[in-house]
Amino acid sequence: MAKRSFPLSKVYGLLEPGPVVLLTTAHRGRANVMARSWHTMLEFEPPLVGCVVSEANFSFTAVRLTRQCAINIPTADLSAQVVGCGNASGRHLDKFEAFGLTPVPASAVDAPLIAECYAHLECRVADTRLMRRYNFFVLEVLSAWVDAARRDPRTLHHRGRGSFMVAGPTVKLPSVMR
Amino acid sequence: MAKRSFPLSKVYGLLEPGPVVLLTTAHRGRANVMARSWHTMLEFEPPLVGCVVSEANFSFTAVRLTRQCAINIPTADLSAQVVGCGNASGRHLDKFEAFGLTPVPASAVDAPLIAECYAHLECRVADTRLMRRYNFFVLEVLSAWVDAARRDPRTLHHRGRGSFMVAGPTVKLPSVMR
Repeated sequence: MAKRSFPLSKVYGLLEPGPVVLLTTAHRGRANVMARSWHTMLEFEPPLVGCVVSEANFSFTAVRLTRQCAINIPTADLSAQVVGCGNASGRHLDKFEAFGLTPVPASAVDAPLIAECYAHLECRVADTRLMRRYNFFVLEVLSAWVDAARRDPRTLHHRGRGSFMVAGPTVKLPSVMR
Repeated sequence: MAKRSFPLSKVYGLLEPGPVVLLTTAHRGRANVMARSWHTMLEFEPPLVGCVVSEANFSFTAVRLTRQCAINIPTADLSAQVVGCGNASGRHLDKFEAFGLTPVPASAVDAPLIAECYAHLECRVADTRLMRRYNFFVLEVLSAWVDAARRDPRTLHHRGRGSFMVAGPTVKLPSVMR
């Protein structure tokens, strides 16, 4: 994996554009991966991410009990794998094997990273106050990794019902926003 | 405004791709608009949106006290206006006038809609439990409007530090995710 450690102060720039992510967990010796789009930055540094993992999802229990997960960001060349992960449940399937995704050890969490993704955020659960009501977890990013060779990655963005926007061109604008 | 009422059940598809939005408020006779990227869907229907509005922002007090706002979604042709709104504070500036944005009355909230945007979500504040800790508001979308003529809108997506991704092509994939 030609990934480099990525400054935590820049993590917001990976998630603000709103990519579909693959969330990985490990619980009782079983790794799992699910496709997610319901997440937002909550704080720059340390980076906090708010993320919905539905209690209907197999991953919910793993996140709740292990209080850990990893957010992996795929690009459009992984569309088939992303859709496969979104269509199936880890309850009955080893999605890594089924979709040819390669689990690699993380540095700060037990959840594996997905080698094929261009970026990874290792997270711990920092706040569960909105977990019961909205299945909403506040995650703190402990460690981040990015494939430095991939600039302006062609991420996938979910429009719903089989429709996905693929990231277009990156433009520079005279913004002073962080 | 050639906008049509948009089904609340489909609102998630407008926000899931992660566009920069223009959040409007009205408080004590003053309308304001700010650029935001920190938001996520929390529930399909009624649509709930989690949204960070920093207490450092002039809009924070308006959202907190009026418990209302509107989320307007701009496209890339409004880049200059979006950046202008992001760089300035409403404390000292009428941004509608400064950036040539046209306020139009909403149906369910006092906050104005921005005529130039392609979609609008009229919102009430539904939950403030994470407001103090993370400046995070849970918003319920009461009414939604979309310019039906604009399919696959070229939305803006913030990468940080003056860098924006412009929405690329929309592709259909065999996803059964909602």
